[in-house]
Amino acid sequence: MMISTGAPRKLESYVCGEWTRGTGDGVPLLNAATGTPVALVDSTGIDFRGALAWGRDRGGRALRAMSFHERALMLKAMGLALMEMKEEFYAESLATGATRADAWVDIEGGIGTLLAFASKARRELPNTRVLVDGDVEPLSKDGSFIGQHIFTPLQGIAIHINAFNFPCWGMLEKIGPNLLAGVPFIVKPASQTAYLTELMCRRMIDSGILPDGAIQLISGSAGDMLDHVTGQDAVTFTGSASTGQKLKTHPAVIENATRFTMEADSLNASVLGPDAAPGSEEFDLFVKEVAREMTVKAGQKCTAIRRVIAPRQHVDALIAALSAQLDKATLGNPADEGVRMGPLASLDQRDEVRARIAELQADAEIVAGNPDDVRIVSGDAEKGAFLNPVLMLCNSPFAAQAVHDVEAFGPVSTLMPYDTMDEAVELARRGKGSLCASVFTDDPSVAEEMVIGMAPFHGRVLIGNRRSAKTSTGHGSPLAPLVHGGPGRAGGGEEMGGMRGVKHYMQRTAVQGAPRLLSAVTGRWIEGADSQQGTHPFRKSLSELQIGDQLVTASRQITQADVEHFAEFTGDTFYAHMDSAAASANPFFDDRVAHGYLVASFAAGLFVDPAPGPVLANYGVDNMRFLTPVYFGDTLQVRLTCKEINPRATADYGEVRWDCQVTNQDHAVVAQYDVLTMVAKTWAET
Amino acid sequence: MMISTGAPRKLESYVCGEWTRGTGDGVPLLNAATGTPVALVDSTGIDFRGALAWGRDRGGRALRAMSFHERALMLKAMGLALMEMKEEFYAESLATGATRADAWVDIEGGIGTLLAFASKARRELPNTRVLVDGDVEPLSKDGSFIGQHIFTPLQGIAIHINAFNFPCWGMLEKIGPNLLAGVPFIVKPASQTAYLTELMCRRMIDSGILPDGAIQLISGSAGDMLDHVTGQDAVTFTGSASTGQKLKTHPAVIENATRFTMEADSLNASVLGPDAAPGSEEFDLFVKEVAREMTVKAGQKCTAIRRVIAPRQHVDALIAALSAQLDKATLGNPADEGVRMGPLASLDQRDEVRARIAELQADAEIVAGNPDDVRIVSGDAEKGAFLNPVLMLCNSPFAAQAVHDVEAFGPVSTLMPYDTMDEAVELARRGKGSLCASVFTDDPSVAEEMVIGMAPFHGRVLIGNRRSAKTSTGHGSPLAPLVHGGPGRAGGGEEMGGMRGVKHYMQRTAVQGAPRLLSAVTGRWIEGADSQQGTHPFRKSLSELQIGDQLVTASRQITQADVEHFAEFTGDTFYAHMDSAAASANPFFDDRVAHGYLVASFAAGLFVDPAPGPVLANYGVDNMRFLTPVYFGDTLQVRLTCKEINPRATADYGEVRWDCQVTNQDHAVVAQYDVLTMVAKTWAET
Repeated sequence: MMISTGAPRKLESYVCGEWTRGTGDGVPLLNAATGTPVALVDSTGIDFRGALAWGRDRGGRALRAMSFHERALMLKAMGLALMEMKEEFYAESLATGATRADAWVDIEGGIGTLLAFASKARRELPNTRVLVDGDVEPLSKDGSFIGQHIFTPLQGIAIHINAFNFPCWGMLEKIGPNLLAGVPFIVKPASQTAYLTELMCRRMIDSGILPDGAIQLISGSAGDMLDHVTGQDAVTFTGSASTGQKLKTHPAVIENATRFTMEADSLNASVLGPDAAPGSEEFDLFVKEVAREMTVKAGQKCTAIRRVIAPRQHVDALIAALSAQLDKATLGNPADEGVRMGPLASLDQRDEVRARIAELQADAEIVAGNPDDVRIVSGDAEKGAFLNPVLMLCNSPFAAQAVHDVEAFGPVSTLMPYDTMDEAVELARRGKGSLCASVFTDDPSVAEEMVIGMAPFHGRVLIGNRRSAKTSTGHGSPLAPLVHGGPGRAGGGEEMGGMRGVKHYMQRTAVQGAPRLLSAVTGRWIEGADSQQGTHPFRKSLSELQIGDQLVTASRQITQADVEHFAEFTGDTFYAHMDSAAASANPFFDDRVAHGYLVASFAAGLFVDPAPGPVLANYGVDNMRFLTPVYFGDTLQVRLTCKEINPRATADYGEVRWDCQVTNQDHAVVAQYDVLTMVAKTWAET
Repeated sequence: MMISTGAPRKLESYVCGEWTRGTGDGVPLLNAATGTPVALVDSTGIDFRGALAWGRDRGGRALRAMSFHERALMLKAMGLALMEMKEEFYAESLATGATRADAWVDIEGGIGTLLAFASKARRELPNTRVLVDGDVEPLSKDGSFIGQHIFTPLQGIAIHINAFNFPCWGMLEKIGPNLLAGVPFIVKPASQTAYLTELMCRRMIDSGILPDGAIQLISGSAGDMLDHVTGQDAVTFTGSASTGQKLKTHPAVIENATRFTMEADSLNASVLGPDAAPGSEEFDLFVKEVAREMTVKAGQKCTAIRRVIAPRQHVDALIAALSAQLDKATLGNPADEGVRMGPLASLDQRDEVRARIAELQADAEIVAGNPDDVRIVSGDAEKGAFLNPVLMLCNSPFAAQAVHDVEAFGPVSTLMPYDTMDEAVELARRGKGSLCASVFTDDPSVAEEMVIGMAPFHGRVLIGNRRSAKTSTGHGSPLAPLVHGGPGRAGGGEEMGGMRGVKHYMQRTAVQGAPRLLSAVTGRWIEGADSQQGTHPFRKSLSELQIGDQLVTASRQITQADVEHFAEFTGDTFYAHMDSAAASANPFFDDRVAHGYLVASFAAGLFVDPAPGPVLANYGVDNMRFLTPVYFGDTLQVRLTCKEINPRATADYGEVRWDCQVTNQDHAVVAQYDVLTMVAKTWAET
């Protein structure tokens, strides 16, 4: 094929730190609404093996040198920079068939996801490179041999093979987690809409915010890329089940046990609760939600509602209400004013959807819409990939197969009636595993039964009701803090889910040994590890404080008068402190005991250094356990040890976590907890 | 083949609640030391599809009806019952070639794992059926729409396809987690040692402790079992990489995204630290550990040390010390007194190991032992599968391939020298992913560098030193609380790891909606969910108390006198409470503030009901955060809400977790925490 001078631009790939063009002629990509060429795509000649190696080595090394908070601040900077340029992405997005509302999900939704990961990581992860997972595991009675799980970054590369429907969000929701984990990526968008991904990658690379090697882009086919994966790489795939299964069983992926996350077909269901009769708020919300899921992105969302499950007696009302709602979806060129729904991504996609509708007709009849009659207000009726919404009805869904197996990836849903809640749950499960389901009800018992029944088959379940109507993000919206992915047909993957998604790019390792050596690995003080005494640790700023700095306090006797005074002063005259007979009738005590809060208060009195200093505030206490009763006359002593130091990247102070152990005269531990303080980075004694 | 009257017993399978024999002739299994027939194995004619369906339906339904603690108590009962019968298993184990010490790992180690899971589950899981995962995720500013992840049991069956080397432990470490999760299982042991697994299953079934359908056994080939898996099943495989990869890519496994956990080949490394010179305690520990790993189970452990990585200057000393240690491994029939090491499992296994040694000789020379010269004190030299330990040396490990790729599954290890710590780490990584590694050092900086360097390539890393020498469980021992599995060549699986392993058999689902409805799903009170006031909740026993029972207290002003009195009484005269100028110079405060412990103490004074009653003790406080400074003159009020109720299965009381929110006169939250109490199941007011 000859490219004339006025030909569309040829998309470039970015590999090994260079923009490069494929050596082939390129495949033309067409505007979804008008059919005019937008760009050419081709990746012929790319050295995929070299690209992966370059990313692993250059990008991995640079990212692993950064702490979690440094990576999070990098994501934040990137998100803010992209948000500044959003109009450029909106403009480019029109060619994909997306309306402004559709593109908002992809562009601002995607950038927002990056920002959400950035802020969540700074709140929930320490400012370290190694992440500790779970508690110390005691492996010996005397504490000389213990275990601790840690997460370290995979020393490979994340390979993201993405679908055409979300050229921005599809990339951003995946790279947030891998970058936070300290792992570089290479993204291969679906060709159909690769021009928008290419533009966004170009802006990301131009910004210079990511280190060399952290980002690479393939515009065009993935070639022999998967031949070169190792056990340290992670491949994600979003798209059709058939392609996904081919990639998942690629010999190199199998041989190296390469992590493979698939997000594929999904026959997501939405259920109208038995309580949500016509006239109820939930009925109206359900109608709007189903219509919205059918028409947003012209139904080209992996999370869209494909199966509408409703009480048999409400089916007619539902068809009427849904038909009326769908009629409002004005179809046309998304570049034009007043258009509410755009075309499908391509004519091929439309052929595909029409073929699937034909298959569904084995089980179901069309009750609204006509797949062969295109009604548009603008755009090219011949060359544009338009399809008006189609609602189908399957009256005997338990006898049907196609409606539970065939996904028409467009504005198509099938309504199916149920008689009992068990039936509704069973119909939802017939999808054999979906990304998400929803149930519209205002009845807690319906919510409980339906959600728990559907949960094993779904990665996400949304409950819709009047109280959350205004704030609900809707059935079809994956969110950064929640897992996205589903079992079975949906591919068995799990993405996002807040910091869960970050760990997907890290290796969990159980480390065992003596506390002293394990503490060196985790950077945390552990019971039994070395400690050092000397200057009161409250007199040390972050610049001086060391893990293991320890204070052993003087001791203090706790008297009956102390307990009675504290009871009177605070008003806490609980019988276990005041009434000897009642206290000793209790299975835990032999006699009256001191208040736990009194023990903690006296402990603070023992360990605090009162003069102004680098310790700024006690902002909390974690895992406080009262382990041995404190009786009148017992003598308390405190051992306070610096356990974790977490300097903030953007403030003059940081969090310090202290191990606080309160013992009695018999060396029994009466209370154990973590004291949380803010400590200044520097401090000059005056 | 004709079976004569004196023929060995034919192993049976247990499917669909019946013991059944294969309809074929059966394959004879031979005693490893003597070559005499032990049993015949055959699964011809079994209805695998029916077996899976029966387990899912009958067993799944029964297990899901139980709570986590009920399932844990079931495991405990089973573990105790099996321990009573252990001598029967030891006797049967002799035929596999295992010495008493080898069999201890398999039998008592396996039963101990079951008991460890039982006790850990009761400590770490609530006594519920649905497991809440992580915190509530705020998804709207006004709190009307929130998210919460939950785990529910898969509605399928766990299919365990096991290796020959641990016929008991290999089953027990897997079924502990799946039974705790509420998922039934079917186990298919490797034929070679299936007689021992069959015996243990028989005893488990005879005990009647497990519900119908929870347990099934296949003695013999797995037939077409995997053709029938669904997306709700979970397959685990332990064995060779080639078989594992075949099963992992089975069309039904791929099509249904069936969970598949593989634990395969692993070229585990052990590193002698640069500090651990001959004469040091760590050097001696290292020698003992390597020799032990080579000889226990005749080296037939997936975790055994295959690669011995040592400072170049200590290689000669190490060869001498290891040779001396290996000479002590008296080889013979494990049934005989004084035998320290038994035969391999079969003559085929020995042929296999000899062939692998020949491959390793491309890179390495034999420096101790002779694979072709069998030296035994008892057993049949012809028909017994004996092989004395073989130590090899690879002088140029960076130029070598076979030593990093070929696993001789027997008493064989290869020693390789290193010059720098980077080289040692790089050599460990050349295994391309292993189940475990170890490093012997007493130097914290060596531990840190080596462990963090090796971690991404390993599921477990053990640090050996003098302090943990007596209590260390050793390089080769997977433990119930720690993950077992490794990336890359090791198969990419993860088993055990305490409650992590249980979650592998459950589906994680993000649930979204209004707090009221979400609370009904999780069984936990959530901010914004319904609450009810009335009788003081401290006057209610577990039989009366409801989630959402709430107390809003009277209010109390906090005065300067209160703060000064508390400071003097407790001794906590921290400047933020006492010194106006110093307090206001602090970035968090405008003036002197009340102590957090004073706020919590006054809060208790406000919410406690003092008279003897069902509340037995306050055993702790979780997640206490001081969110707004409390200044002199502020007025505090407490809202206490019953959040979680966790009755103990084996006591007259249970844990109740209360949401405690302290607010000031402006309705700002000044403190937020969970109060943990023990509450009696019943209580009669007198």
